[in-house]
Amino acid sequence: MSQTPLLNDRDIEFLLYEFLNSEALLERPRYQEHSREVFDATMATAKTIAEKYFANHNAKGDANEPTFDGEKVHLIPETQDAWNAFAEAGFLAAHYDFEEGGMQMPEIILRAAMSYVSAANISSTGYPFLTLGSANLIRSFGDEAQKAKYLPPMMDGRFSGTMALTEPGQGSALADIKTTAKPHEDGSYRIFGQKMFISAGDHSLTDNIVHMVLAKIEGAPAGTKGISLFICPKFLVNDDGSVGERNDVALAGLLHKMGYRNTTSTVLSFGEKDGAIGYLVGEPHKGLSYMFQMMNEARIGVGLGAAVLGYQGYNYSLDYARNRPQGRLPSQKDPTSKQVNIVEHADVRRMLLAQKAYVEGSMALCFYASHLFEDSHTATTEEERQQAFTLLDLITPMVKSFPSKYGLRANEHAIQILGGSGYIREYPVEQYYRDNRLNPIHEGAEGIHGLDLLGRKVPLGGMAGYQALKNEMMATAESAKTHGETADWALALEAGVASLDQTTMSLLGTLGKGEIDLGMANATVYLDMFGRVLVSWIWLKQAIVAARALAGDLHQDEENFYRGKLQAAQYYIQWELPEIDAQAKLLQSLDDTCLAMQDAWF
Amino acid sequence: MSQTPLLNDRDIEFLLYEFLNSEALLERPRYQEHSREVFDATMATAKTIAEKYFANHNAKGDANEPTFDGEKVHLIPETQDAWNAFAEAGFLAAHYDFEEGGMQMPEIILRAAMSYVSAANISSTGYPFLTLGSANLIRSFGDEAQKAKYLPPMMDGRFSGTMALTEPGQGSALADIKTTAKPHEDGSYRIFGQKMFISAGDHSLTDNIVHMVLAKIEGAPAGTKGISLFICPKFLVNDDGSVGERNDVALAGLLHKMGYRNTTSTVLSFGEKDGAIGYLVGEPHKGLSYMFQMMNEARIGVGLGAAVLGYQGYNYSLDYARNRPQGRLPSQKDPTSKQVNIVEHADVRRMLLAQKAYVEGSMALCFYASHLFEDSHTATTEEERQQAFTLLDLITPMVKSFPSKYGLRANEHAIQILGGSGYIREYPVEQYYRDNRLNPIHEGAEGIHGLDLLGRKVPLGGMAGYQALKNEMMATAESAKTHGETADWALALEAGVASLDQTTMSLLGTLGKGEIDLGMANATVYLDMFGRVLVSWIWLKQAIVAARALAGDLHQDEENFYRGKLQAAQYYIQWELPEIDAQAKLLQSLDDTCLAMQDAWF
Repeated sequence: MSQTPLLNDRDIEFLLYEFLNSEALLERPRYQEHSREVFDATMATAKTIAEKYFANHNAKGDANEPTFDGEKVHLIPETQDAWNAFAEAGFLAAHYDFEEGGMQMPEIILRAAMSYVSAANISSTGYPFLTLGSANLIRSFGDEAQKAKYLPPMMDGRFSGTMALTEPGQGSALADIKTTAKPHEDGSYRIFGQKMFISAGDHSLTDNIVHMVLAKIEGAPAGTKGISLFICPKFLVNDDGSVGERNDVALAGLLHKMGYRNTTSTVLSFGEKDGAIGYLVGEPHKGLSYMFQMMNEARIGVGLGAAVLGYQGYNYSLDYARNRPQGRLPSQKDPTSKQVNIVEHADVRRMLLAQKAYVEGSMALCFYASHLFEDSHTATTEEERQQAFTLLDLITPMVKSFPSKYGLRANEHAIQILGGSGYIREYPVEQYYRDNRLNPIHEGAEGIHGLDLLGRKVPLGGMAGYQALKNEMMATAESAKTHGETADWALALEAGVASLDQTTMSLLGTLGKGEIDLGMANATVYLDMFGRVLVSWIWLKQAIVAARALAGDLHQDEENFYRGKLQAAQYYIQWELPEIDAQAKLLQSLDDTCLAMQDAWF
Repeated sequence: MSQTPLLNDRDIEFLLYEFLNSEALLERPRYQEHSREVFDATMATAKTIAEKYFANHNAKGDANEPTFDGEKVHLIPETQDAWNAFAEAGFLAAHYDFEEGGMQMPEIILRAAMSYVSAANISSTGYPFLTLGSANLIRSFGDEAQKAKYLPPMMDGRFSGTMALTEPGQGSALADIKTTAKPHEDGSYRIFGQKMFISAGDHSLTDNIVHMVLAKIEGAPAGTKGISLFICPKFLVNDDGSVGERNDVALAGLLHKMGYRNTTSTVLSFGEKDGAIGYLVGEPHKGLSYMFQMMNEARIGVGLGAAVLGYQGYNYSLDYARNRPQGRLPSQKDPTSKQVNIVEHADVRRMLLAQKAYVEGSMALCFYASHLFEDSHTATTEEERQQAFTLLDLITPMVKSFPSKYGLRANEHAIQILGGSGYIREYPVEQYYRDNRLNPIHEGAEGIHGLDLLGRKVPLGGMAGYQALKNEMMATAESAKTHGETADWALALEAGVASLDQTTMSLLGTLGKGEIDLGMANATVYLDMFGRVLVSWIWLKQAIVAARALAGDLHQDEENFYRGKLQAAQYYIQWELPEIDAQAKLLQSLDDTCLAMQDAWF
């Protein structure tokens, strides 16, 4: 098998239409002209493009990473074909309204569609994904002239975009960025500074690259409250929309990643000569708040990327396990008996079940987040929209972090199932593992999300999001008690929620008491604990759907599918959830082992 | 910092002379001509060679992996210099007796010395390490003529060696190998078959390569009882010791690994023409038992390799954390205040402490195993020798698996501490991570060690090894109770041992009852649980030494060193040991989630 099958259509269908009721979106005014058939056709188009233009060079792009000859960046030519196919199918504009020139497609349908593209080639999808994100910033916060100038070419694929936040001296601590913006008499700015790890920061796929740059206007307040957002294109754009002179933005060099190689990772120098011309987006000093408003979206994207990489490793290792004869069960002592396929070994099943639980659980979590995102924009009442936003905001740290951590674990298992073959580049699973190692780092490192969750998201608004989520979880548990298959798991979830509750209260108690450094010290453990409870809930919700379906008369394939969902739920709740007991104990004791460790003792 | 410091001399000294009493070896007859100074000079020589000839091309060998032009394998030239330096220093022969031409050095001193070489460049050490292992097979089981012909050139570096076990169709299931050996009238054999993943299987570092090949003599019994061991050199060796004609062994191709790249990984074809000439070692059908007698040694080697890769990532990330300013503590809200170095952040300390606990714990475990190996050969009484062997045999699955699993976790943390820089090849930590991913796979995959531990090592000899280890652990706990710093941890270890005991009994109860497939289903979880208890004991032993030392009057550096040992022990016992509670519950319930999963449900 040379190419890994892309995701699992049956599972995507289950997540969209059974786990979530995405067909109900058709009742909303924005989607009245659509139909289930249009949704499905959109996903089918994406899958076709993914198979034809992205999967074909996933390994090749890894083996032949981008190069810079001092003047130009070179990518393997298939990358251009992939970009063109994506743009020509309209996916750069699909979420825009009809009147903006878009397809007015729901977020969750597009996420599902894009999942196929990411699964085929995560690094070549970097170019369109960053373009979508940077265009959204302009769409949301730019003025009409900016929108008119930049959005059309970013929607049809003539321009691409980047998000230029990180600097050589500042990764997680954006408050301390040093890039400056000097006001110019014509109302624009001159930008000076260096940005690092800028994905898709240079290439020749498009006529222009629109950098969305965070910088501090001279004399701005210290910290996050002094950061502004600028449009700073590689080439200036004339008023007629044509591409003009080169701006003072230079590629200082390419970085050479462990994976994700076909997305260029760049160091960019702004203003080596007279200053790079930049245009303020929105108001001064509000740049970080604009970025943060886009972050829930970006973080669902990272979570989903990690999930699909995990999914691909699962698919490949499952196929391998079904076709590789090796050894016998412990009870079979006769060396002349036929060897079994390794899928028969309990330990291989463990590694497959763990992968299934992580990746299908992660996909379901990200789809649920995407559904909340959709609701936060298009649900019927303001109250529903607000409720969806509140829930999404709370769970975003886990939506980003859980798939990033456990998608990587899934890839580790995929390698292990293949054994020596898993470790060599002749097979695809080691690349998934290398690609996926990026995800716990970018778009907020794991530790940052722990601090964000415990220090901000949980206490926010009188714990409104937390309470809302807890109510949802308890309602699911109630419902699960009515099915024989899921009743025990409902009790396990309730116990998990109670443990999370106690832990949360004991930690929040420290924040106002001047013990904040102690209370926050183990926030990453809290993030993992919360993620385990959350994903147990996600699995219980899937299990309820499966149990209901199994009560009916089913074709064998369908019965197998739902049985698999139940077994994966059982795996997650019996094998992975119980680890929260040790975590709860540690957190509630306000253990200071790490905080009290001294530098000199290492 | 371009080069990572190699290990930590103070810690090696601690492990050898405080944690273990290696100076007492000098009282044994074999070592009476040595001294502590000789031991230390041996290690210093190894470190110098490591720094000068191995560390210099660790990154280069990764970036320029071996190539095969159809006739010859090409390695970067530094590999040859490294091989020569290692051989010229006498390390290929150092463990042999004086009368054999060796240095009569103790195993544990050589292990410590070799640790520096592995730390400098794990893949270039592959060539000498495999040569040491294959020569040991000839030394232990070959006849006098074979020893006379092959050992001298393998001791002085003219010949190298390999271990050729795995085949394309058989990795973990050696019982089913297909390579055959036909008896020839001259008493030799003709070997036919293909071997895969043979490390160091071809190169031009030496005049000859001696393959130690497992094959089945025609008509041999099925399964492991029909496997024989053969010497099968790349070039035949004339009776005068000169290198003769090419044997019928051909390189079918190189494999391209994720890491460990400067060790060639090969597919070898034996007997494409008339059959490769092979020479039976020892008796027919005993090949696997010979191999197994060398495996404890080989497995300590893999465990130690994983530990030192973890150690190098720890060293680099610690230095980085001490010098990288970023952000402020949660209690510091003033954005104009100075940023702290990231070593100040509790979550970075957590990742450093976890690394320290894993890698120093793993080193200590491997050194302890090496000490047992030494005792099993040179302890004064037969009873002591037997006791040491029994203990070593029991713990070998953990000695191999624990460092392989947690050394990799340590490298994951090192990457995370460096953030984006950790993910790029401009920094060394991502290579350690890629290199280390091999270790849970080779020399027995993780799952195989779980089965070996629970199905064979624990019940062996009326649980003799298990009982002996338990007695050791309980004695340590008793002793730890007398120190204020360690008393609580003694109780935690006792509880851990009790939990392991209960779990062991409930699992062993299934093996005789025809429930063997169920009882063995979760053996990998048992392996991890056992490893956690074992390493908690190893940490408690280190903590006792530290607590005793701290009772004296110490220089500040020394006090810091011992405080660090105590804090790492606390981390391991308070953060990592408690996860066994969930494991014990799962194992004791004979959970069948994985075993009962059906292929069709995936």
